[in-house]
Amino acid sequence: MLKEAVYHRPTDQFAYAYDDKTLHIRLRTKKSDVHAVSLLHGDPYCWEDRQWQFTKTEMTKSGSDALFDYWWVAISPPYRRLRYGFELVSGNERCVYTEKGFFHEAPIDDIAYYFCFPFLNRIDVFHAPTWVKDTVWYQIFPERFANGDPSLNPKGTIPWGSADPTPTSFFGGDFAGIMERLDYLVELGINGIYFTPIFKASSNHKYDTIDYFEIDPQFGDKPTFKRLVERCHQKGIRVMLDAVFNHSGHFFAPFQDVLKHGEKSKYKDWFHIHEFPLQTEPLPNYDTFAFVPTMPKLNTENQEVKQYLLDVATYWIREFDIDGWRLDVANEVDHQFWREFRQAVKAVKQDVYILGEIWHDAMPWLRGDQFDAVMNYPFTNGVLRYFAKSEMKASEFAHSITNVLHSYPNNVNEVAFHLLGSHDTPRILTECGENKEKVKLMFTFQFSFTGTPCIYYGDEIGLTGGQDPLCRKCMVWEEEKQDLELFAHVQKLISLRRKYRSLSRGELHFLETNDETNHLVYTKTYEQETVIFLLNNSNRKLDITLPLSVKRKKLTDLWTNKQFVSEENEWTVTLAPYGFLMFLVE
Amino acid sequence: MLKEAVYHRPTDQFAYAYDDKTLHIRLRTKKSDVHAVSLLHGDPYCWEDRQWQFTKTEMTKSGSDALFDYWWVAISPPYRRLRYGFELVSGNERCVYTEKGFFHEAPIDDIAYYFCFPFLNRIDVFHAPTWVKDTVWYQIFPERFANGDPSLNPKGTIPWGSADPTPTSFFGGDFAGIMERLDYLVELGINGIYFTPIFKASSNHKYDTIDYFEIDPQFGDKPTFKRLVERCHQKGIRVMLDAVFNHSGHFFAPFQDVLKHGEKSKYKDWFHIHEFPLQTEPLPNYDTFAFVPTMPKLNTENQEVKQYLLDVATYWIREFDIDGWRLDVANEVDHQFWREFRQAVKAVKQDVYILGEIWHDAMPWLRGDQFDAVMNYPFTNGVLRYFAKSEMKASEFAHSITNVLHSYPNNVNEVAFHLLGSHDTPRILTECGENKEKVKLMFTFQFSFTGTPCIYYGDEIGLTGGQDPLCRKCMVWEEEKQDLELFAHVQKLISLRRKYRSLSRGELHFLETNDETNHLVYTKTYEQETVIFLLNNSNRKLDITLPLSVKRKKLTDLWTNKQFVSEENEWTVTLAPYGFLMFLVE
Repeated sequence: MLKEAVYHRPTDQFAYAYDDKTLHIRLRTKKSDVHAVSLLHGDPYCWEDRQWQFTKTEMTKSGSDALFDYWWVAISPPYRRLRYGFELVSGNERCVYTEKGFFHEAPIDDIAYYFCFPFLNRIDVFHAPTWVKDTVWYQIFPERFANGDPSLNPKGTIPWGSADPTPTSFFGGDFAGIMERLDYLVELGINGIYFTPIFKASSNHKYDTIDYFEIDPQFGDKPTFKRLVERCHQKGIRVMLDAVFNHSGHFFAPFQDVLKHGEKSKYKDWFHIHEFPLQTEPLPNYDTFAFVPTMPKLNTENQEVKQYLLDVATYWIREFDIDGWRLDVANEVDHQFWREFRQAVKAVKQDVYILGEIWHDAMPWLRGDQFDAVMNYPFTNGVLRYFAKSEMKASEFAHSITNVLHSYPNNVNEVAFHLLGSHDTPRILTECGENKEKVKLMFTFQFSFTGTPCIYYGDEIGLTGGQDPLCRKCMVWEEEKQDLELFAHVQKLISLRRKYRSLSRGELHFLETNDETNHLVYTKTYEQETVIFLLNNSNRKLDITLPLSVKRKKLTDLWTNKQFVSEENEWTVTLAPYGFLMFLVE
Repeated sequence: MLKEAVYHRPTDQFAYAYDDKTLHIRLRTKKSDVHAVSLLHGDPYCWEDRQWQFTKTEMTKSGSDALFDYWWVAISPPYRRLRYGFELVSGNERCVYTEKGFFHEAPIDDIAYYFCFPFLNRIDVFHAPTWVKDTVWYQIFPERFANGDPSLNPKGTIPWGSADPTPTSFFGGDFAGIMERLDYLVELGINGIYFTPIFKASSNHKYDTIDYFEIDPQFGDKPTFKRLVERCHQKGIRVMLDAVFNHSGHFFAPFQDVLKHGEKSKYKDWFHIHEFPLQTEPLPNYDTFAFVPTMPKLNTENQEVKQYLLDVATYWIREFDIDGWRLDVANEVDHQFWREFRQAVKAVKQDVYILGEIWHDAMPWLRGDQFDAVMNYPFTNGVLRYFAKSEMKASEFAHSITNVLHSYPNNVNEVAFHLLGSHDTPRILTECGENKEKVKLMFTFQFSFTGTPCIYYGDEIGLTGGQDPLCRKCMVWEEEKQDLELFAHVQKLISLRRKYRSLSRGELHFLETNDETNHLVYTKTYEQETVIFLLNNSNRKLDITLPLSVKRKKLTDLWTNKQFVSEENEWTVTLAPYGFLMFLVE
C-alpha cells in the first residue's frame, strides 16, 4: 500500500456537512492500490469499559483520475459529533489511517488518534439557493444583444451587426431590445439571465463603473430595468447582475476627486495609492486591475468603501428584486469583504445567488461563509481541450472532470456554474474550428453535467469570433442567418434537463473511456433514475457495446423517445461521427 | 519521482500571507525522493510576446517526517499577486508541478495551469498579538492555588491540602490568595496567567456557569478581581480568562427558565432541545457537553444567545482590561459565532489573545478569521510519549514535531500555546513515573520551542497526581515541601528564553536523532542567533559529538555561561542520564 498517496484532512472537500444532518467524508488513495476502505467512526464521548466505541461503515469508490482513487461515504452522526479513521485493505495488507498516522489495529484507548468533525453546526453548513440547481443561465452582454430603442444609442453607434466589434465600438444594445426578445429566451427554455455590467460606465463592456447606483443611459433607465426584471420574473426567469467591486472606472467620482485633490481628497483611502501625485507611467503608482490605469483597485478594507459597496449590493436587490450577483475579479478582493457581503445580501434576500469569478482552485471562497459558487473554469478548460481542441484524449478528460468534482464538496458541485465560453473567451464554434457537430457534443456534455449551465448569448445559434473583442459580436436576429438546428439541439437538451433530474442533479460515473476511438460512456444517477450517455468525440462512425448488462432492462432513447427491451446481455449501438446517444435505463 | 506523494494546495499551511508583504509557499514530497525544488512564480498580468514572465527561486527543505520532506520559500510579490508552480528535480528526472498536474516543461502560453494566490489583502493576513511571542503562561485553577480570604470559603471547605481532591471538594482558593502569591510568580519569571473559569458556578472547577457577568463569590468580588488584574499589569503579567461558551451550567437562569416553563419559556431557543418536557434519562433529550445533563449546549446560532455571549466577551475586556480569552470546547461551537466573536473582542482591544481549546488538527479555526491560537495538544502528545512515557523513540518524536510544525502556517506556530499538562491531564511528574530528571528535560524542550509555553500551576515545584480530580491538588506553599531545584530549573529556562530570542521565535532544525541512544540534537535559529540543544532522553550517560563543525566557533554553554573556542572540527560532550546541554554558537 502506498502510504504516501493516502490523503485526508478534516476540512474542505474531504470532510464537510452536506446538509443539517449529514457529513460527507472522503479519502484519496493511490490509483488501483487499495481495494476496500471503511470508515471507523463514533461519537467522541461514547465509551464503555475505557474503550472508545466505534462502528465500521464501508466507503464507495467515487471516482479515479490519473494518479488517485477517491473514496466517499455519507454519515449521519446521532449527536452531530464525529471522531473517525479509515481502515484500508490492499491485497493481504490491512491498516488503519488516523490523524496520527498509520496503525496495524484501530487504537481504542484514546480518541486523540482520530480525525475529528467536532460538531455539525447548522449555521456553518454550505447552503446555496436550491433554485440554482434547476436553472439554465443565459449570459447577455447588453451592448450586443438587441437594440430596441435607437433613441438611446450612444454617440458613434454603428448599425447593428454592420461590422466586427472593436474594443471601442457601440451598437446600441439596450433593455428595450432584451425585453422584445424575452420570448425567444423562453422558447429556448432558459430560466436565468446573467447580465454583464449595466451600471453607468464609459466603455461598451461597462466594467469601468462610473456610478454603481445608476443604470447606464445607453441601456435605459431604472423604471425600464425594473420592468425588465418583473417581466423576467413573470416568465420564470431569474436575473443576475455583475458586481465589479475589485476596481472602479477612471470616471468614478471618488477617483476623480483623488485625481483632482490628491492627498487632500477625502477619498484618498478609497484606493491603494503608493504615493502622490498619481502617475500612470511607466506603471501606475496605485494598485489597479492588472496594469490598467483606468481601473483603480478599490480599497475594500476601508470601512467607507465597504459600506458603499454593500449599500450598492443590497440596493439592487431591495429596489429591483434581482436574484443573484456575479462578482467580477472576485479572487483579488479580500475574504473579509466577501464574508460581510454574504451576510448583507442574504439578510435582504435569503435565496440570492452569489457567484464569484475565479478561474483557479477556489476552495477558500467556497467554505460556506463567502460564495455559493464560482464560474467553474477548470471544467471549461477540460471540455474545451477534449471536445474543441483535441488536446486531451478521452481518459485524460475523464480524469480532469473527476479531479474537478473531487476538488470540492458535493453541495458545492451541485450549484457550480458551468460555462463553455463567455465574453472573456473565444466563441465555442470558433474554438471547434467551426465544426458544429463538435459544438453540439460539447453542449450535450454540458447539459448532462451537474450544477448550473450557462449559455453565452448567440452560441446557441452559431455565432463565431475569436478572443475579445471578436467574441462580442452583435446577436443575429434574422432567422435565416441563425443556425436553427443548433438552436433546436440546445432547446432539446434544456427540456430533457428539465424532465430528467439525473442530468442536473445526478452523480456522474465514467464507465468507459477509450483513447483509441476517443469515445466516452458515462452515467448520471439521481435517486432511482439513471441515464447512460455515449459520446463519440471522433470523426469516424463508431460501434459501441454498452458497458453494462442490458438484459430485460428497458432503455429509452431520450432523443427519439424510442424504447427497447433486450433479451441479451450485450447491446451494441452505432454512433455517427461526433454523435451521441442517451438512454434512460429502467 | 513519486508523483502521488507531491502535495500542494494554494491555501492553509501550503500558501499563506506571512505578513503584509510576504507570502510563504510550501510543498510536500516523498521523503528523500526529490533533491531540489524551485518555485516558478510571477505576476499573473506580466506578459511579453504572448509569453507569461516568471522567475525561479530555489526552495529550502524545512523538515522531514516519517514519509515526507517539506519545502519552503518566502516571496514578496511586487504587486501582491502571484501565480506559481514548482520545478522538482529527482536524480536525472525533472518536472514541473502545477494546479493542472505534471509537465515536462513549464507552460508559458496560459497562466490557467498555475496555482494562484490572487492578492495579498492585508485584512486577511493571520495577525495574532505580538506580545504573545514573548509570554510565558502560568495556568491557575483558582480553587486550588491559594486561600487568602477564609471568610469567602464555601460551605464544606476543608483545610488547605489536607486531602486529595475529589470531584466535589472545596479548599477555598481565591483572588486574595493569588494576589499574595504574585511575587512568587514574578520570581519564577512568568508574564501571563491563564485562569480557569472564575464566573459564578456551582462546581469547584466552575465550568458549569450560573452567571457569566458575575465573579464566583468564593473567589472574591469584582473590585477584587479588578485589583488583581491591575496588580498583574503592574508586574508585567497579562491575564487570560476562560470562556465557557459551548454550554452553560444547570443553574444558568435561562436554562432554569426552560426547566420551569418548558415550551413556553422565552429561552427555549437558547438551547438545542429536541422535545418537551426535558428529560435526562436514558440520555438527555437536549444537546449537552458530552452527555452531561447539567451542561446544556448553548444555541450560539440564536441571535439573542450570540449577543448575550458577545456582551460577556467584551464586558470583561472593557471593564476589567483582561488580555485574552481561552475558549472552552471551542471546536464544538459554530465557526460563524467565532468569526463574530473575533470582530467583537478585537474592536474593544486590538491585541487581545484568542486561544481555542482544540485537541485535534485545528486548521479551520486558524485561517485568520477566528482564533489566534489553539492549545497545541498534538505537540503535548508527542512530548509526553517521547519524554514521559517512552512510547516513542527519538526519530519518531522528531517526525511528530516536524509534522505538527508543518500542519500550520509559520505565523500560527509562532503564537501557538504549548502546554505539557493542564487541569484535564495527569500531572507531568506523575506521567514521568516521578522521575524528576525527565520532567526537567521536558521543560527544557518546551522552553526551547517556538510559540508560547504554559506551566500548569505546581508543576514547577513537583506536584503529583493522576487524572482529574487528582491533578487538581492544592498548591504547596511550604518551601520545604516544594521541589526548589525544579523551580530553579524552570526559572532558569524562563530567563534564558527571555534573553535568547532564538528559543521563543527561532526556526527549529533537528540535526540528529538516534533511536539507539534515544538522544536528540537540534538547533533554534533566529536572525543571527543560533543555539544548539543536546538532549539525552535515556538513563545512561552519553558522549555526543556535535553534528556540526565547531572549528573556530565560539560556543557558550548557556547553563554555566562557560565559553569554548575549539581549534578542532569535532567536539564531543558528555551528557548525564536525562541530561542536556545548550550552546550559543557564534
